[in-house]
Amino acid sequence: MQAARGAMANFRLALIQLHVSAVKSDNLQRACGLVREASAKGAKVVALPECFNSPYGTQYFKEYAEKIPGESTQKLSEVAKECSIYLVGVGEIFVLAFTKDPFQKRMVESCIIHVLSLGLMVLCWQSIGRKDKKENARSLGTNAVVQNTCGVQVHLFDINIPGKIQFKESETLSPGNSFSMFDTPYCKVGLGICYDIRFAEMAQIYGQKGCQLLIYPGAFNLTTGPAHWELLQRGRAVDNQVYVATVSPARDEKASYVAWGHSTVVNPWGEVIAKAGAEETVIYTDIDLKKLAEIRQQIPILSQKRCDLYGREMKK
Amino acid sequence: MQAARGAMANFRLALIQLHVSAVKSDNLQRACGLVREASAKGAKVVALPECFNSPYGTQYFKEYAEKIPGESTQKLSEVAKECSIYLVGVGEIFVLAFTKDPFQKRMVESCIIHVLSLGLMVLCWQSIGRKDKKENARSLGTNAVVQNTCGVQVHLFDINIPGKIQFKESETLSPGNSFSMFDTPYCKVGLGICYDIRFAEMAQIYGQKGCQLLIYPGAFNLTTGPAHWELLQRGRAVDNQVYVATVSPARDEKASYVAWGHSTVVNPWGEVIAKAGAEETVIYTDIDLKKLAEIRQQIPILSQKRCDLYGREMKK
Repeated sequence: MQAARGAMANFRLALIQLHVSAVKSDNLQRACGLVREASAKGAKVVALPECFNSPYGTQYFKEYAEKIPGESTQKLSEVAKECSIYLVGVGEIFVLAFTKDPFQKRMVESCIIHVLSLGLMVLCWQSIGRKDKKENARSLGTNAVVQNTCGVQVHLFDINIPGKIQFKESETLSPGNSFSMFDTPYCKVGLGICYDIRFAEMAQIYGQKGCQLLIYPGAFNLTTGPAHWELLQRGRAVDNQVYVATVSPARDEKASYVAWGHSTVVNPWGEVIAKAGAEETVIYTDIDLKKLAEIRQQIPILSQKRCDLYGREMKK
Repeated sequence: MQAARGAMANFRLALIQLHVSAVKSDNLQRACGLVREASAKGAKVVALPECFNSPYGTQYFKEYAEKIPGESTQKLSEVAKECSIYLVGVGEIFVLAFTKDPFQKRMVESCIIHVLSLGLMVLCWQSIGRKDKKENARSLGTNAVVQNTCGVQVHLFDINIPGKIQFKESETLSPGNSFSMFDTPYCKVGLGICYDIRFAEMAQIYGQKGCQLLIYPGAFNLTTGPAHWELLQRGRAVDNQVYVATVSPARDEKASYVAWGHSTVVNPWGEVIAKAGAEETVIYTDIDLKKLAEIRQQIPILSQKRCDLYGREMKK
């Protein structure tokens, strides 16, 4: 894989900060339109925000829930195939608990009701069946199949800041129990959803497993957004020397949950290299894996870690 | 210990951003003077910068090296006793490798030469011999003995940013092999030296072990200082919901290694609550452990961690 990655050390990432309405079909249509626009501008990896297909809020989860495959995944599979891109982090797919693995079942009051998971899906093109990896990478988009990689938010968003924001996803949702990565000809990508970004361990695990880009579709709010949204991703980036991208819905002041917006890309030096405002927009950045390698050489913290000590001290 | 801590939920921390000259005795005298000043202003925990007693640079380590006990520890023990304070992170004590434990021995080209460790020492007053913990805490400073806690920098500073900064501590120094914490009637404190702050794992371990304040005496430079000094401590603070303090020497443009200065305190919400400029100064902040507890309740990430998954995924 080295040769292929060496040959493709740069690629364009697009983050779609979608304005999400209450009409699912409209959300889907506009999302697909913006994905096509991003592809036309050269993006090879495209990410949609958390809840790209529904308003955010536990009261909406049941109504907008879909099984996989369903309307949303179908539409996005088509556009990923059409554009020959990695369509990453399709935001939340709400999956009824009575669907099968990999989503968790949970009993509530002895009957299965609307226990949902926040599903994160990657719809990507991956060429198959070639022995020559370099050739394989080049062939992207011509000899490819759609691959769905499903993941689920691991850390549920339960917070209570009196007078500011209360939210309890765990009343309605079940957490995922595994981490979500996928490979591209450029680099390995690690995924988390929103609140997952608060947990440094997840990013550390992705880093250890070779991810060079982390993508967090998320919807921080007007309290935690200004306080922590950028700080958390800059921290993840500099601590693990990876690119970090966050993708928020556009801000809608009339929504019951007002998202912070400000979709962002941070480089492995901890610098913000692309940042949206609050309105609907698509931001682009060229991910430079050579720069990443240089930074890792300059400050080689990854090889300087004292795993001999951490293991001894860390809780099991 | 809960009662004692509950009774002392606030305490004043002072960071002494000392101008360090090439004259050790002068450094010691002025450091002790500023410690007395900080104590007079109510500080109960006082921290000195990295290399408070010598210029920073591998070429100086041998000349300024001291065994423990030695001139520096003697002077600081006296002032800690006089002021009845916790004198934390007395900066670097350079210890010749042929001293005994807890410092590491290392052979270089078959003979022990000037292999040193960056020693970090806490000189604190701790009352002893009382069964009533609350009373014990109150008695601080009247029925007390000096306790030395020695620690050594765990991660050595080896970086190479072409045209900007090259430095290789490991050519001259041996790393420590354990973490350094100490208890106070207020809270448990975790210590690191400078480059240690780049390693999120160390702060996570301190957090798990109950530290609520982390102190990093450090001397970042004019390249990494503006890029990462504040970001790293804000990241450590928000990820572990602890107070984080960094203590730098004052900037000396004529020194061979020019320190960034900007000693800082960050609260568990990730906000900078005290910050020095580049010049010699003492900064004060009141550490509020009630606020810390509130933040942990509002965003309970410490209890929401998925240790069941991290352990499975983390490298041993």
